[in-house]
Amino acid sequence: MDTEDRLVVFQPSGRRGRFALGTPLLDAARSLGVYIESVCGGRAMCARCQIEVTEGRFDTYGVVSSNDHLSPMGESERRWKVGGARRMSCQARIMGDLVVDVPSEFAVNRQVVRKRAEVRRIALDTATKLVCVSLPAAEMEHPIGDADRLVEAIEAAHGYRGLVLDVTLLDVVQGVVQQGMLTAAVHEDADRPVIVGLWPGARMAAFGVAFDIGSTTIAGHLVDLVTGRAVASAGTANPQIRFGEDLMSRVSYVMMNPDGREALTQAVRGAIASLVSRLAGQAGILPGDILEAVLVGNPVMHHLFLGIDPSPLGQAPFALAVSGALRLCARDLGLGLHPGARVYLPPCIAGHVGADAASVALAEGPQHHDEVTLVIDVGTNAEILLGTRARVLAASSPTGPAFEGAQISAGQRAAPGAIERVRIDPLTFEPRIKVLGVDPWSDEPGFAEAVQATGITGICGSGIIEAVAELFLAGVVTADGTIVEVASDRVRASGRVFDFVLWRGEIEIAVTQTDIRAIQLAKGALYAGARLLMDHLGVSAVERIKLAGAFGSYIDPKYAMVLGMIPDCPLERVSSIGNAAGTGARMALLNRGHRAEVEALVRRVEKIETALEPAFQAHFVNAMALPNAAEPFVHLAAAVALPAPAAPRERRSGRRRG
Amino acid sequence: MDTEDRLVVFQPSGRRGRFALGTPLLDAARSLGVYIESVCGGRAMCARCQIEVTEGRFDTYGVVSSNDHLSPMGESERRWKVGGARRMSCQARIMGDLVVDVPSEFAVNRQVVRKRAEVRRIALDTATKLVCVSLPAAEMEHPIGDADRLVEAIEAAHGYRGLVLDVTLLDVVQGVVQQGMLTAAVHEDADRPVIVGLWPGARMAAFGVAFDIGSTTIAGHLVDLVTGRAVASAGTANPQIRFGEDLMSRVSYVMMNPDGREALTQAVRGAIASLVSRLAGQAGILPGDILEAVLVGNPVMHHLFLGIDPSPLGQAPFALAVSGALRLCARDLGLGLHPGARVYLPPCIAGHVGADAASVALAEGPQHHDEVTLVIDVGTNAEILLGTRARVLAASSPTGPAFEGAQISAGQRAAPGAIERVRIDPLTFEPRIKVLGVDPWSDEPGFAEAVQATGITGICGSGIIEAVAELFLAGVVTADGTIVEVASDRVRASGRVFDFVLWRGEIEIAVTQTDIRAIQLAKGALYAGARLLMDHLGVSAVERIKLAGAFGSYIDPKYAMVLGMIPDCPLERVSSIGNAAGTGARMALLNRGHRAEVEALVRRVEKIETALEPAFQAHFVNAMALPNAAEPFVHLAAAVALPAPAAPRERRSGRRRG
Repeated sequence: MDTEDRLVVFQPSGRRGRFALGTPLLDAARSLGVYIESVCGGRAMCARCQIEVTEGRFDTYGVVSSNDHLSPMGESERRWKVGGARRMSCQARIMGDLVVDVPSEFAVNRQVVRKRAEVRRIALDTATKLVCVSLPAAEMEHPIGDADRLVEAIEAAHGYRGLVLDVTLLDVVQGVVQQGMLTAAVHEDADRPVIVGLWPGARMAAFGVAFDIGSTTIAGHLVDLVTGRAVASAGTANPQIRFGEDLMSRVSYVMMNPDGREALTQAVRGAIASLVSRLAGQAGILPGDILEAVLVGNPVMHHLFLGIDPSPLGQAPFALAVSGALRLCARDLGLGLHPGARVYLPPCIAGHVGADAASVALAEGPQHHDEVTLVIDVGTNAEILLGTRARVLAASSPTGPAFEGAQISAGQRAAPGAIERVRIDPLTFEPRIKVLGVDPWSDEPGFAEAVQATGITGICGSGIIEAVAELFLAGVVTADGTIVEVASDRVRASGRVFDFVLWRGEIEIAVTQTDIRAIQLAKGALYAGARLLMDHLGVSAVERIKLAGAFGSYIDPKYAMVLGMIPDCPLERVSSIGNAAGTGARMALLNRGHRAEVEALVRRVEKIETALEPAFQAHFVNAMALPNAAEPFVHLAAAVALPAPAAPRERRSGRRRG
Repeated sequence: MDTEDRLVVFQPSGRRGRFALGTPLLDAARSLGVYIESVCGGRAMCARCQIEVTEGRFDTYGVVSSNDHLSPMGESERRWKVGGARRMSCQARIMGDLVVDVPSEFAVNRQVVRKRAEVRRIALDTATKLVCVSLPAAEMEHPIGDADRLVEAIEAAHGYRGLVLDVTLLDVVQGVVQQGMLTAAVHEDADRPVIVGLWPGARMAAFGVAFDIGSTTIAGHLVDLVTGRAVASAGTANPQIRFGEDLMSRVSYVMMNPDGREALTQAVRGAIASLVSRLAGQAGILPGDILEAVLVGNPVMHHLFLGIDPSPLGQAPFALAVSGALRLCARDLGLGLHPGARVYLPPCIAGHVGADAASVALAEGPQHHDEVTLVIDVGTNAEILLGTRARVLAASSPTGPAFEGAQISAGQRAAPGAIERVRIDPLTFEPRIKVLGVDPWSDEPGFAEAVQATGITGICGSGIIEAVAELFLAGVVTADGTIVEVASDRVRASGRVFDFVLWRGEIEIAVTQTDIRAIQLAKGALYAGARLLMDHLGVSAVERIKLAGAFGSYIDPKYAMVLGMIPDCPLERVSSIGNAAGTGARMALLNRGHRAEVEALVRRVEKIETALEPAFQAHFVNAMALPNAAEPFVHLAAAVALPAPAAPRERRSGRRRG
């Protein structure tokens, strides 16, 4: 890999690659299969290929400064009046690491197409559609109400039956009907079609929002329901964090405080309402122009958003208050959308496998493939899907928050100053580190200056994973996870065990034996969950692995496999699928068929409760070793020089004596 | 008629009669066909025959003081702890004029039965029903949500299909399901059955309210949906009165004031919400225990309640914003009921014939009869229904507010101090009057003392109607409505015309020529509307007349016919049907079938717009005469000694010269 190459991550797909300095973004996108519309073929003549350089807004792993990482804006872009954070991807050339947002829903459609049938395009089939009708003036001879005449006219012109008018439109129907020509928004995803919006004249604008409510961040996308195009994206920290960093501490907060549930519900709804305002502001529309919302989240987020006490999710039997898909009115949830706006929440799969996992399954589930496919979405719990077109299994594994940097002595959330990448020289044991928000690696020119801005404050999830994996590959950590004394002053005794010092500066950052145990517990649980599903499916290997979410975007699959977090698999068959939950939410927003699809899928998913399975414990024990005590990891061994499996135990005992 | 007899009016039926002092109320009720439950047969042993002595609460015609108009409470009633305004009707004896409320829904059922098929009882078939189920504890092996399990269990046990849970119950479902046995309220009058209420354990209490929103007063009845029994009644002045006395002045207020519609809507909803609190308080329940509401009102009241601008109803083509029946959620209307409570509004018939008229039609419409039946509900507009089982026609006539005492020189709303009854001695022309709130007639002992309390302040609707009719019968007013000079100092010149002085006291109250013209215009319009419908139906006479509302309860049918307000008909076939709109609302509350019935009825009603019919004008001109220039009024002439039809014109010209 040329050291001049720069990392570019395309959102929302999460596809990533390294490209030579000066590569046009459009070319980079195409080489990764990221679809960006371009009518003129890259000749700066259509301005359709616009992308947006994000500043890590949906990105728990921090910020990439964009200004000097793209070529300056040239004449052609200025001519097209491309503005804000937008650039024309055929003109903008890669000058540094970048996170790029492709603000077009075509990306989603293509992505889905690819997984279903290579040629077919997904037709736009939104739950809410605009229809135009003209009404004659009221006649005294036929004293039927304006609303009733309107319903009859739309039924006659557009083939609806049993159409009704939403109560919130009773006060506008007269004024609109008097104009003659009018536009109605008809919501079709209810027991009977409902007119949810009314405007005088012809109107071709209707909008929807898709939200992915994460424990840490909430991301929203505003979509034009007429064109299917994404018109704005925004994200925010989940304000529930002040009530508890992780899910279980928020559940505890609810259990301990009489008004806790209400406070958490208000917090998340308020955040969504203000994101709605931001999204509308970006697109130059009003929140009241938004007619549909789809929201996904894990069960605790899902329940708190709905105003449901999540306490039962904190203890066996982890009972969901509601698991089925929900079709609600936005006004009952205080989201500040159009008064008639409708809300859809996909079903939850099980007590720890929520509507977000269902949404991942919709977008990227094993049911799209003939090969045995494993889909993993890692957060505090890992949601695991395994199967083929024929069968899909789901489980969650209690990985705990170690992969997110919690429970690690120097751990921190992914933010500027966090060590995010680690390399250990296998000969000298000397580490190289990459710090979030700092471009050069620690051994590259300019690092000392660049790191002044952020400092080095700790180590985040991807950093600790790479550190442990590299230490294992270098022989500093044995297969059973023990740090051994090597010929380096980086290893130092700490009581009866050893630490490995990654960084010495204003503060010292070390990987401790306890840190490694935490990672072993987490990765053991993750692997054991996947393995348990493999047992149930009756397979001994998986043929494809998809890593969803921030985990998938920021963890190098190689290191995940070196640690034995994921089962053995050809490395090139391991891919990152980006924010698949968000993608699934947008699919449900854009196409009613996808709602039926996710509901049918969740019904047929075989739910495995790891806590009830004795085999889980056995797999877990074996999976504590690096990469695994019971599995050969043949594909991994072919790609990476693993330490000899028998050696570590001898070396460790030898060293310990010394 | 014995002068010792006392007038008793039974509500809600409006049945009235005169009874000897000391008659037990139960006997009086039975003699009028008013059904009061009595298990013990009047032996003071069951306390089931309770009635309530109202103080005219639903009564635009004022107050009857009740304390000394019933025999004192005896031992047996004290033993049964009958309290508040309640009395046992077998024990309470008539000692004065009374308005009595029969607080039992059985009265309604019997009343309806009588009109349909003498033997059949109306089965209770409420839209919202209580069901009990037991749920097993949640199982980890089957991670289905509590709400989903609940739905499945109720579907299985009670035969529902497609059952859903109301969004407002998402936050209580867990707590309720944990108890095992639970009670759910299932609302069946929606596209699919909806669980609208949930309680732990077995519960047998569910309540509904029926409201009749009048321009002047709002009346509400609280009904036990399990037994069908009315458990409380309350009424209040419509607070919209401060924005305008009559409908058109309120419509004007909305047209002139930007926030007018909102203010009027808040006023009526607020009044209903506070009536809900009072009703709940009377019954010892919470407003949140009320699961259903049915509301009826004229089109302007209906629209304002719904938050719809009523301005188009004030001018041709008098277009309704919505005419069909409405099924809504109470929470969208701010009524303060149970969060899941549902609201039903019957359809409006036409721009001036509202949901209240539809409700009258449901309870008392011509479709119940083989005979040609005319139903009249008089307010500012008169709503008129005519037909038989085969055909029903409806219209409204612009009577204006003269019948309510407005547009009359000394006119006033029916309130204590208003002249409500008038008799003119045909020989001496000396008037006798009866004042509202004063027991003796003006020529009876004790009148002078009794009238001190109220004074004599004006003349209300029933008073002016009786005055004009009696003046006509006495020959003081001619058939064309002219006051002529007779041998009495009561007649005095006023410019070129004459007044008739009804009362001389601190203030003088006279019937002026202008007053008579106003009554002629009003009664002419009412008659012309009825006659127009007779033309359309192809009949020259009606066989039965029913007078609804306060008009029906307080106007003597004889005087109505003497004036020619209503067509000729045997007097004994003219009856008062009380608050039929309220009765219809309660029928829709208690039986889903009645909702389908009123909707089907309104669809088949032939709506006649009087403003479009040239014949209306011709009938109107003829109907200006007393009783009518083109109709013989044979039945009336047989019952009442009418002045000779030819005489008046000669007498008038003769007198005028004098």
